[in-house]
Amino acid sequence: MAKLLPPNGIDESSLGLRPNIKPIMNRKFPSNYRLRTKSSVTVRNSVNIPKQWYNLVADLPLKPPPALHPQTHKPLKPEDLSPLFPDELIAQEITDDRYIEIPDEVIDIYGLWRPTPLLRAKRLEKLLDTPARIYYKYEGTSPAGSHKPNTAVPQAYYNARQGVKNVVTETGAGQWGSSLAFASSLFGLNCEVWQVRASYDQKPYRKLMMQTWGAKVHPSPSNVTDSGRKILEIDPSSPGSLGMAISEAVEVAVKNTDTKYCLGSVLNHVLLHQTIIGEECLEQLEVIGEVPDVIIGCTGGGSNFGGLTFPFIREKMKGNINPVIRAVEPSACPSLTKGVYAYDYGDTVGMTPLMKMHTLGHDFVPDPIHAGGLRYHGMAPLISHVYELGFMEALAIPQTECFQAALQFARTEGIIPAPEPTHAIAAAIREALNCKETGEEKVILMAMCGHGHFDLAAYDKYLQGNMIDLSFSLEKVKASLASVPHVTL
Amino acid sequence: MAKLLPPNGIDESSLGLRPNIKPIMNRKFPSNYRLRTKSSVTVRNSVNIPKQWYNLVADLPLKPPPALHPQTHKPLKPEDLSPLFPDELIAQEITDDRYIEIPDEVIDIYGLWRPTPLLRAKRLEKLLDTPARIYYKYEGTSPAGSHKPNTAVPQAYYNARQGVKNVVTETGAGQWGSSLAFASSLFGLNCEVWQVRASYDQKPYRKLMMQTWGAKVHPSPSNVTDSGRKILEIDPSSPGSLGMAISEAVEVAVKNTDTKYCLGSVLNHVLLHQTIIGEECLEQLEVIGEVPDVIIGCTGGGSNFGGLTFPFIREKMKGNINPVIRAVEPSACPSLTKGVYAYDYGDTVGMTPLMKMHTLGHDFVPDPIHAGGLRYHGMAPLISHVYELGFMEALAIPQTECFQAALQFARTEGIIPAPEPTHAIAAAIREALNCKETGEEKVILMAMCGHGHFDLAAYDKYLQGNMIDLSFSLEKVKASLASVPHVTL
Repeated sequence: MAKLLPPNGIDESSLGLRPNIKPIMNRKFPSNYRLRTKSSVTVRNSVNIPKQWYNLVADLPLKPPPALHPQTHKPLKPEDLSPLFPDELIAQEITDDRYIEIPDEVIDIYGLWRPTPLLRAKRLEKLLDTPARIYYKYEGTSPAGSHKPNTAVPQAYYNARQGVKNVVTETGAGQWGSSLAFASSLFGLNCEVWQVRASYDQKPYRKLMMQTWGAKVHPSPSNVTDSGRKILEIDPSSPGSLGMAISEAVEVAVKNTDTKYCLGSVLNHVLLHQTIIGEECLEQLEVIGEVPDVIIGCTGGGSNFGGLTFPFIREKMKGNINPVIRAVEPSACPSLTKGVYAYDYGDTVGMTPLMKMHTLGHDFVPDPIHAGGLRYHGMAPLISHVYELGFMEALAIPQTECFQAALQFARTEGIIPAPEPTHAIAAAIREALNCKETGEEKVILMAMCGHGHFDLAAYDKYLQGNMIDLSFSLEKVKASLASVPHVTL
Repeated sequence: MAKLLPPNGIDESSLGLRPNIKPIMNRKFPSNYRLRTKSSVTVRNSVNIPKQWYNLVADLPLKPPPALHPQTHKPLKPEDLSPLFPDELIAQEITDDRYIEIPDEVIDIYGLWRPTPLLRAKRLEKLLDTPARIYYKYEGTSPAGSHKPNTAVPQAYYNARQGVKNVVTETGAGQWGSSLAFASSLFGLNCEVWQVRASYDQKPYRKLMMQTWGAKVHPSPSNVTDSGRKILEIDPSSPGSLGMAISEAVEVAVKNTDTKYCLGSVLNHVLLHQTIIGEECLEQLEVIGEVPDVIIGCTGGGSNFGGLTFPFIREKMKGNINPVIRAVEPSACPSLTKGVYAYDYGDTVGMTPLMKMHTLGHDFVPDPIHAGGLRYHGMAPLISHVYELGFMEALAIPQTECFQAALQFARTEGIIPAPEPTHAIAAAIREALNCKETGEEKVILMAMCGHGHFDLAAYDKYLQGNMIDLSFSLEKVKASLASVPHVTL
């Protein structure tokens, strides 16, 4: 059921913002307070950029199911991926090695924004009056404003090293397209992006950002590709979807030998590159002597979530720590909580390999929620596998609760989140309020994967009281699940 | 003379971006490279947040001229400022103390984004083929995206501590209004902002950002104040100016006893708070063993420039270092290089104290260049005084050269600058290219005061070839200088 907020805008008193956040002016601090501030509020000072990415596959008790060729349904051979990816990334996609060395050139560029800060949300805790301690790992300080450059940079690097001239990709919210445009410009690659049309129209600034870095941007579905034209024939006013945009970019890569494709989430090598988040965070928590009880992240394709949590799952498997690990998805696109675990295509047209994943069906077109980065029909195969193995749990939250949480966060912590991580914030607030009931002093660690500088129209809509919770239709999911291919291994 | 770029957009080859920035893939690095990377690319890891602000006035060989009462032209008494500012900020405005302790509550919030990174622009150096080493101190990682929160936070803090309920201010580019909205929300203050109408109309996202933090935003000139109504009577379509917006905000503060005024630049206490930039930077340079030969910053009101350079001027006066210190202003609003050094009002209507400064006349309305933060008729009195004492030099650069420099920077360093610091970048590039001629290995330090996420329309205009260098009219300046009051001390 869609829930409409009062037409005159948000009742600010219901957010409970003002009364609790007055500064305590007369508090006396011990003489070492400056030091305590540094260690409890921000620990960005104390760690180095990790030298290796971590491959969770190496440590799992059961290996994930293989990807399959889209036509033959036989396990995919590495060379099948050659039209799409450079050799090194294909090797990383299928490797069993536990650690992969990060190239010096990549570390060098990581240094622009890494290590990212681990911050404690002390003013939010106070507002919620919770005994819980809430920490967030903030990836919004990267040039593109999210965690996505963590993988865009190595992807551009390996392509450039192999002599590739052009890279193509798709983008939903625009974070990934921006990140690849940024990384391509540093390595002298031409970059072409298919941006989901809903996002292309609503977020002109994201498009301009990509163009400023020198990328060419098309709305998707576009007339530039066969896939796009096919979709436009059926629905000329299609708002687009990530699945469609992937079809377009993949088609261009397959048809042009000097062009490779880059993906911002879902695949193993992408999640691998993101583990730098969790590795840094483990060290940062150690410096301040905290152990997380609950780790929360939003999940669209899964790269932000996997990036933070995989190193913690490693420690959990070793028996060193035992946090609850919780994925949060939007109610309007709940692949983990309402999808099936089955082989499906990563794109709409069916050009990509079949991967076993939690899916709503490859032709599911989610409602246009503001968290464009979470509007994907499937979940990363590796996250899906880890979910099946019982290492993590999942829940879905509607967007108005997420934006209410986002305002509480912005007005206490000062950072305006992108719509995607508002899902993590909403779930962290639920957990913190639960701690208030039970009196538990849990340590909550949250993935704050990006800022909302290009999403302020969504905040405007919420502040005006015009944001609704888009209805989720089981019928629609059932219909799209009917197109999931039948695969027998 | 306005210079129009080719109508078909920028000739990218003229930027010389591609050929020089291919990665060197086969280079062998010594085993300690990771460590060297850290220290040469980013030194954010190695310093703490300073505990004190630095007051340059304490060390100057000649004290700056006093501010005068706008009606009596007599030296201003501290109590004259009481309607506008809380006691502690008035004390800081006139203090001779060399160092001011930063309150713990302020340090605590600084920890959200400080210490800010000092980065080396190695890929830009390579593109320019210069022997110079270019460093930039990057303030864009703050929640509002610039250096402005460095002073917004203590201003909000001191107001809250004195029991003030409401703060008012003006904003040009939107950086300052955003910063005060952010800081006010953390301390439970109501915040009201008069945004220059040209900016209000062109930058809806900046307005939304302030609203997301809970501030109320008016376009200026507005119908809300006598000052605004007076200006609108004469010119109903006035694009506004910082001077006008200051008049409106000051009027509201003066008329309401529960309301104080905050200023984002120009005044001594504002520049004082910004010295945290330079103090951090001194330490960061020491860690990597570099000594700056040239320090470059953009100047509008002067707070970013003063913030970086004042601690270096202290060291220069001590004889420890001897850098050239260079202010860069826009050709369309050149207060230091084309203005007079005289007593003038800070606002358009003449409500503020008279301050001796480099001014183009308080009713000068600069052309609507994209660097809205540099569109101010005057220069900070303290910067003006330091300029007269010969501690620094100044030059003016037209905006198309600045945007060309910005693209070179964005496509090599990865950070898209706000229009204001593009002036510093353009000047740094001039210096670096000069080093290429002379072979000098100068160390250039640059103030990179904010990102351009809300200024992408300006980049679009430049990329389309539609940006022009607005003509600067000596006649117009002469006319506005005629209104500068005659003051005899």
